Amino acid sequence: MPLLVVGSVAFDSVETPEHRRDSVLGGSAVYFSYAAGYFTPVRLVGVVGDDWPQEHTELLNQRSIDTSGLQVTKGKKTFRWRGKYLPNMNDRETLEVHLNVFGDFDPVLSEEHRRSKFLFLANGSPRVQLKVLDQAIGASLAVADTMDLWIREEHDELMQLFQRIDGLVLNDAEAKLLTDDENLVRAGHKICKMGPKFVVIKKGEHGAMFFSDYETYVLPAFPTERVVDPTGAGDSFAGGMMGYLAEKKSFDPVTLKKAMAYGIVTASYTVEDFSLDRLRTIERKDLDLRLDQYERMLSF
Amino acid sequence: MPLLVVGSVAFDSVETPEHRRDSVLGGSAVYFSYAAGYFTPVRLVGVVGDDWPQEHTELLNQRSIDTSGLQVTKGKKTFRWRGKYLPNMNDRETLEVHLNVFGDFDPVLSEEHRRSKFLFLANGSPRVQLKVLDQAIGASLAVADTMDLWIREEHDELMQLFQRIDGLVLNDAEAKLLTDDENLVRAGHKICKMGPKFVVIKKGEHGAMFFSDYETYVLPAFPTERVVDPTGAGDSFAGGMMGYLAEKKSFDPVTLKKAMAYGIVTASYTVEDFSLDRLRTIERKDLDLRLDQYERMLSF
Repeated sequence: MPLLVVGSVAFDSVETPEHRRDSVLGGSAVYFSYAAGYFTPVRLVGVVGDDWPQEHTELLNQRSIDTSGLQVTKGKKTFRWRGKYLPNMNDRETLEVHLNVFGDFDPVLSEEHRRSKFLFLANGSPRVQLKVLDQAIGASLAVADTMDLWIREEHDELMQLFQRIDGLVLNDAEAKLLTDDENLVRAGHKICKMGPKFVVIKKGEHGAMFFSDYETYVLPAFPTERVVDPTGAGDSFAGGMMGYLAEKKSFDPVTLKKAMAYGIVTASYTVEDFSLDRLRTIERKDLDLRLDQYERMLSF
Repeated sequence: MPLLVVGSVAFDSVETPEHRRDSVLGGSAVYFSYAAGYFTPVRLVGVVGDDWPQEHTELLNQRSIDTSGLQVTKGKKTFRWRGKYLPNMNDRETLEVHLNVFGDFDPVLSEEHRRSKFLFLANGSPRVQLKVLDQAIGASLAVADTMDLWIREEHDELMQLFQRIDGLVLNDAEAKLLTDDENLVRAGHKICKMGPKFVVIKKGEHGAMFFSDYETYVLPAFPTERVVDPTGAGDSFAGGMMGYLAEKKSFDPVTLKKAMAYGIVTASYTVEDFSLDRLRTIERKDLDLRLDQYERMLSF
């Protein structure tokens, strides 16, 4: 079942203690859609400048991603981010952000896109996320991501958004900031009370937690020695999760849990190289194989 | 099957953001033996001063812990530790350490204790741990804990110890310090190469990882809202783990994994109150019940 994602498309420059890459393909909607593409047809809505190379679009199309919603703005530049990872490869510092064309992003969905049953609102201001929700009249499952900037600067709009979405995905630091609570279990429940029917807290190398009125659980990350670049891990996680839900056309508790596991496994591949470089080398069967290993790891 | 533990017995003074307790029962061997006592008879070897109240001994005896190896040194004081937890309840600062009688601890095992099949060398210098190993001629499984102090100050003795033990339990910060590697998966494998047949890295609120030449896995912590005092969580984890192994008279991979799970569940109770206050209120059936919940949590 088609899955619509609206979010950032970017050029990332990444420094890690051992490597450095400049201007590689990135952005929340890119990582999300590439990861989700293993499971279901994906429709990507985003904006780029005229510095965007056609080969990036082709790469996305090869993974059955519909890029008809990728708007190219002439005379402007694509969103650029530069960051540096600390030796623990979990914490990072943002060195430069140039919103460029993403700063004026005002997505208008096509008639077909408006009817998508599964919707993911990736990184973007709650103001823009609300505008997309207004248009996405066919969405039976709407899940959003958010970040520290919006928690601090568009708090009211974020609270409005929470009243209207089914699920929220955010990371541990953001959950603590949003609730002013250092205990993630309490934080998760507090966020559920703000509106979303379920909340997923991503913990990077420590996995992810799920919260609803009926369930609380935590799943660890898939252990890997090869952490080359964690950029996009959270968005790949969300992509794997939402992709599996759309494939199954369901979001009942059992499917949601397996979707979380697929999200974790998908993200475990993303971190093994820069940009989409590792994901490009794998097929769906590799995800299934690692999911089997993961399931065995958690059985006792 | 009897399980022998040699380690510290202490009075702890603990400050958390919300509470404070002075001079409560603590120490690695105390938490370990109380946790292990749910599974198997435990023999505790340690030392206290004449400020040690008889009621503490009685509390341990009630959980079928043999305290014949708990030496009381007249005219001296029991080991005291004072610490303060940061708001995240994971990191802590040591405010005061008075080794007192523990500074001269030179354990001499009784004939019966020397024949124990299962041995845990809790917090103590590798020098003392090696001396205990020399005496524990009957041990078919010897597992040790260690800490930053010994990694820094008795590195050579620690390396000797690693050649002679079957398993090592340490926390994430210690594993990184010992290997100079921030990736815990790589760190775990590096420590295996230093000698122990298996290594367990404790990650506090994020669970624990297991490493051997044949297996690598991670299990999350049991999620709890009620984290009152994390002191002793690591020792309770080790106690639950080793207690289960001694109960099953086995340490094959399948039993080890279930033992890890029991360790995690036991520690999840410890943190729910100060000292042994929460553990005192539960029975073995409570551990089994939470283990069932934990197992279901990890199934998808």
